Amino acid sequence: MTVHRIAAVDITPVAFGDLPLLNAVGVHETHAIRTIVEIRTDDGLTGLGETYADSAHLARLRRAADLVLGTDVWDLNGLVRAVADSLPGGQTTGGSGTAGMIASGSTVDRVFSPFEVACLDAQGKATGQPVSALLGGAVRDRVEFSAYLFYKWAGHPGSEPDRWGAALDPDGIVEQARRMISEYGFSAIKLKGGVFDPDEEIEAITALRAAFPDHPLRLDPNAAWSVPTSIRVGKSLDGLVEYLEDPTPGIEGMAEVAREVSMPLATNMCVVSFADLDPGIRQDAVQVVLSDHHFWGGLRRSTLLAGICDTFGLGLSMHSNSHLGISLAAMTHLAAATPNLTYACDTHWPWKDPAEDVIRPGALTFENGSVAVPTGPGLGVELDRDALGVLHEQYLACGITDRDDTGYMRRVDPTYERRTPRW
Amino acid sequence: MTVHRIAAVDITPVAFGDLPLLNAVGVHETHAIRTIVEIRTDDGLTGLGETYADSAHLARLRRAADLVLGTDVWDLNGLVRAVADSLPGGQTTGGSGTAGMIASGSTVDRVFSPFEVACLDAQGKATGQPVSALLGGAVRDRVEFSAYLFYKWAGHPGSEPDRWGAALDPDGIVEQARRMISEYGFSAIKLKGGVFDPDEEIEAITALRAAFPDHPLRLDPNAAWSVPTSIRVGKSLDGLVEYLEDPTPGIEGMAEVAREVSMPLATNMCVVSFADLDPGIRQDAVQVVLSDHHFWGGLRRSTLLAGICDTFGLGLSMHSNSHLGISLAAMTHLAAATPNLTYACDTHWPWKDPAEDVIRPGALTFENGSVAVPTGPGLGVELDRDALGVLHEQYLACGITDRDDTGYMRRVDPTYERRTPRW
Repeated sequence: MTVHRIAAVDITPVAFGDLPLLNAVGVHETHAIRTIVEIRTDDGLTGLGETYADSAHLARLRRAADLVLGTDVWDLNGLVRAVADSLPGGQTTGGSGTAGMIASGSTVDRVFSPFEVACLDAQGKATGQPVSALLGGAVRDRVEFSAYLFYKWAGHPGSEPDRWGAALDPDGIVEQARRMISEYGFSAIKLKGGVFDPDEEIEAITALRAAFPDHPLRLDPNAAWSVPTSIRVGKSLDGLVEYLEDPTPGIEGMAEVAREVSMPLATNMCVVSFADLDPGIRQDAVQVVLSDHHFWGGLRRSTLLAGICDTFGLGLSMHSNSHLGISLAAMTHLAAATPNLTYACDTHWPWKDPAEDVIRPGALTFENGSVAVPTGPGLGVELDRDALGVLHEQYLACGITDRDDTGYMRRVDPTYERRTPRW
Repeated sequence: MTVHRIAAVDITPVAFGDLPLLNAVGVHETHAIRTIVEIRTDDGLTGLGETYADSAHLARLRRAADLVLGTDVWDLNGLVRAVADSLPGGQTTGGSGTAGMIASGSTVDRVFSPFEVACLDAQGKATGQPVSALLGGAVRDRVEFSAYLFYKWAGHPGSEPDRWGAALDPDGIVEQARRMISEYGFSAIKLKGGVFDPDEEIEAITALRAAFPDHPLRLDPNAAWSVPTSIRVGKSLDGLVEYLEDPTPGIEGMAEVAREVSMPLATNMCVVSFADLDPGIRQDAVQVVLSDHHFWGGLRRSTLLAGICDTFGLGLSMHSNSHLGISLAAMTHLAAATPNLTYACDTHWPWKDPAEDVIRPGALTFENGSVAVPTGPGLGVELDRDALGVLHEQYLACGITDRDDTGYMRRVDPTYERRTPRW
């Protein structure tokens, strides 16, 4: 049995420019932060992973990095034990890089994820196989993504307007969609809602439907609505959206809404870990789960989630946070190898400056709204050490060590209150 | 990306001597039949699988063998599509080699299984990794099996007594247990029931408890009891068995029994495919699922089953039919890589003549009731072509092309009636 033991781990927090995208808890800060995890084995294999960089999470990654040393890159069961052992207090929550929007979930799965992805990358290099093959084989050679629209300010306060400009009403959203679809070719559209009065967001969806009669639409207010509001809005959106994402908080609330509206309800807020699946399924709270390998414990555990969705008749889509190319590669391999992932995946990719990344350019390009699945060994992307250094310096310089959409909004508007649900 | 395409498939039915083991539907015939699946890739890798040999199943394997040609051994998603395409009429049932005791289930999963195992064996040879590593890594270096006791005749009708002799009452069962445990070292005991009046089988369990105070006990009457009988017997066995397996037929019946008895109910009869999990779990029909990669779609799909059991708080054990060394190796790798497989696995191994197998001896040996997980590439077993030829000739000579425990019993006792439930 050929052994490839992890001999070194590098944990590097990085920051890249972000735009003032509005959501239910505030607004994106000037920089998004991520952590790059790099492993090297005793026989010279390397592997890459990418995850959140909130300070508590970063501290956990560093503790885990010590304990995974010596683990064989094929021994994912041993790897998860090592990660669990590194977490004093076990399954605590928090530090997820989602501005507190995903407050539950499994800390072990979240810390394990980038190490698992890095091991699969290394396994791929050891075998000459792309990660999609290690996950059971690509069922598609391109992975579809959706146009992820955000209400946004013209630019960060005190700065010039950014290249996307303002989008604060239905016309602005339609204009944003036109431009994003013309640049990237997306054939599905998701609007991040929960920002304005629900009736304004219904108007935006109606305007998108008129402008894009054939694009499947989704709306995600991040649990900004009460159950009665969710039911009222859900009825208004009947026939307009392919699914309605997290209208209201919690499994019980979602189940109440699901009984009253016609469209499937999707979630990345109330069913966010394996522990949530039993109550979520027994209560028929959701009809579509948004997988996300960053908090579902990596790629193999995400295929378990996919198998569970298939077994229990749930739809499967994919969630995104602001991310770099290593995550895009991992998401693409996972989606390619998941037969029942039939919705276009979310991605924040268009909001990132194309010049900023930690991987060498060219491996991942959007065409007709989709990304070709890399066929080289592992993830099929290569670390650009100079670029990593630049983005690490930017992390140190920007001073952001925890994602705080609410705090940033309050610095701009001291009267802003965080409320869930708001309407 | 390195490609290893399936260039040839050999499908060989074999037979090996079996003993007159009694069960709820009759008695084991003189020979058990199995099919050996061997693949060879265009670059010279080989892989082995083992499955049932009932005539309908064998015909399906042969059709599938044509369609899997050209598939990459890493492309398990492509492999399952090829197998599904080879099955006209799709998800029919039957031909399972379980004497009709598992009448439902997925035909695609059953036909896919030996090809999947063979591909994992080949993947292991390509990478130098044992199959357990390809499944996520061995969490134990030995796998525990249970002493699988059967009521039995002294020998086949018209033949001399076999080396195990008769076991037709509690004393006979205890004697059989003593001998099997002394030879193999098993530390858990399963009694195949459903043969005699339930009160006699309660007596046998009581006698086993007295003789083996520390061995976990299980009783499996293969759905021979009505719901009221199951509840009565279940209450009598309170504190005596670690689980009660399939007392009564069907998910609804099992759910009724589960509400009234204290011990967990296990199954390999009412939850036997992914389609059964949703109703089985929603109705709380069973507390332990017996996995079996032969009908759950191979090793990766069995790890999916394990993940589902873990997610929904179900226990996990492992089912067995009469089998040879390729299946024992596959079962051992799977069990080793499944953290929540905490019960000792079933095996019919002691009932087989040790001289009869299709693999070279030495790879798998029982010590203290457990088998060491092979650490060589793939399954870690090697085909013995001469032995394969001998067992194939035996298949042709014995004339058994479908397992028929009930028909064999009727040839001995023309008054025998198959009834489920019987009591």
